[in-house]
Amino acid sequence: MDSADRRFDEHCRARGVAFEANVLPGANYDVAVEHAGQLWISGQVPRVDGAIAVTGCLGDGVALVDGQRAAAICVLRALAIARQRLGSLARVERVLRMTVYVHSAPRFTQQSEVGDGASEVLYAVFEPAGAHTRTSVGVAQLPKDAAVEIDLVLAVRPA
Amino acid sequence: MDSADRRFDEHCRARGVAFEANVLPGANYDVAVEHAGQLWISGQVPRVDGAIAVTGCLGDGVALVDGQRAAAICVLRALAIARQRLGSLARVERVLRMTVYVHSAPRFTQQSEVGDGASEVLYAVFEPAGAHTRTSVGVAQLPKDAAVEIDLVLAVRPA
Amino acid sequence: MDSADRRFDEHCRARGVAFEANVLPGANYDVAVEHAGQLWISGQVPRVDGAIAVTGCLGDGVALVDGQRAAAICVLRALAIARQRLGSLARVERVLRMTVYVHSAPRFTQQSEVGDGASEVLYAVFEPAGAHTRTSVGVAQLPKDAAVEIDLVLAVRPA
Repeated sequence: MDSADRRFDEHCRARGVAFEANVLPGANYDVAVEHAGQLWISGQVPRVDGAIAVTGCLGDGVALVDGQRAAAICVLRALAIARQRLGSLARVERVLRMTVYVHSAPRFTQQSEVGDGASEVLYAVFEPAGAHTRTSVGVAQLPKDAAVEIDLVLAVRPA
Repeated sequence: MDSADRRFDEHCRARGVAFEANVLPGANYDVAVEHAGQLWISGQVPRVDGAIAVTGCLGDGVALVDGQRAAAICVLRALAIARQRLGSLARVERVLRMTVYVHSAPRFTQQSEVGDGASEVLYAVFEPAGAHTRTSVGVAQLPKDAAVEIDLVLAVRPA
Repeated sequence: MDSADRRFDEHCRARGVAFEANVLPGANYDVAVEHAGQLWISGQVPRVDGAIAVTGCLGDGVALVDGQRAAAICVLRALAIARQRLGSLARVERVLRMTVYVHSAPRFTQQSEVGDGASEVLYAVFEPAGAHTRTSVGVAQLPKDAAVEIDLVLAVRPA
């Protein structure tokens, strides 16, 4: 197994999360589209075993550490989708963009720190190629009252 | 006429919406930029005949069904722009990303369901190639008090 | 010096802003990633000399003109990063996407007008190739209480 796949498995185990063998979208869209060397992945909430692992609002009941855990689960779920589509995370060449949407109370200003929870996963899984661009913003709400939602654009190698 | 163009026209007629022959941006930016096989389309609000068809806040006065109608109009407007730029929607190869921004009250958590209103349009117009990735989030406000705003990134064939 | 670089310098001088020689990310992500003819730039807040130049909420204490100034500084900072990575802004071929996140009070609906502050910079620096797509939305909060955050996707020429 490729080392990125192995590190992904280790991270999921360490966090006690496991994703379904085939992540399916909830409605009439797809979880990922590959085209011309890019893999676009739909926005992921921290869903594990059919439930949202972290719900609620950062700065109004949800602690920073829980937001970071939510972000880590979101990006792991996105990587689970990437692996299913690509066959192996070894095909990921670069992470072009991670956008981190944080369900935020008006006075909560640590969206970047929440995003760190996901960035750490990318560095750990794709070392040394884990460098990525990131945008973190605070939104009013998210689907299913999720605390965080994350989408990715990856550059991928041919199969 | 290509079948995607025909289905687009049918959808606009069925919803009673018609867009200007040349959609112009409101200010100093462009509505679409084509480059290297991608067409990026600016964020569209549900504007028809110079007015915003659905204004206000989901979960605070705007019903889900109206949010879905707003989403459908936003994406139809984006496709009208694509058709003007490309000559025909037949040149659309894949929808790489649709981002759905939903003007949301704090307790409104059906952003995905709002997005379904736009996803249905993409499937109907581009069958069977309507599969697309999607990110739906709840925002605090949108330009001109629009209920929904949508942007697209398309993969396109050479002219 | 290329004329885009020169106009960028002039704009920074006119606004009295100067950016560090090497803009570093605040945490474990990168400020820009170049791949296959695209340069993706991380979300930038209006940071100058280590401080956020414009904080707070549009429609609740921050005036439109200050939001526009914030947007201009955000995009200038993004261009400073692009120049550092590319060697010269002459390598920028097109601006594919600018997303403008505006920290907005519930009744503030001039997100597009805030974005104009950044669009003007792109036109001024990249004339006549400053045309770009844009999405402007109102968010609940932003990192470090910034009034505006902006990210970019650029099409770039080979070095």
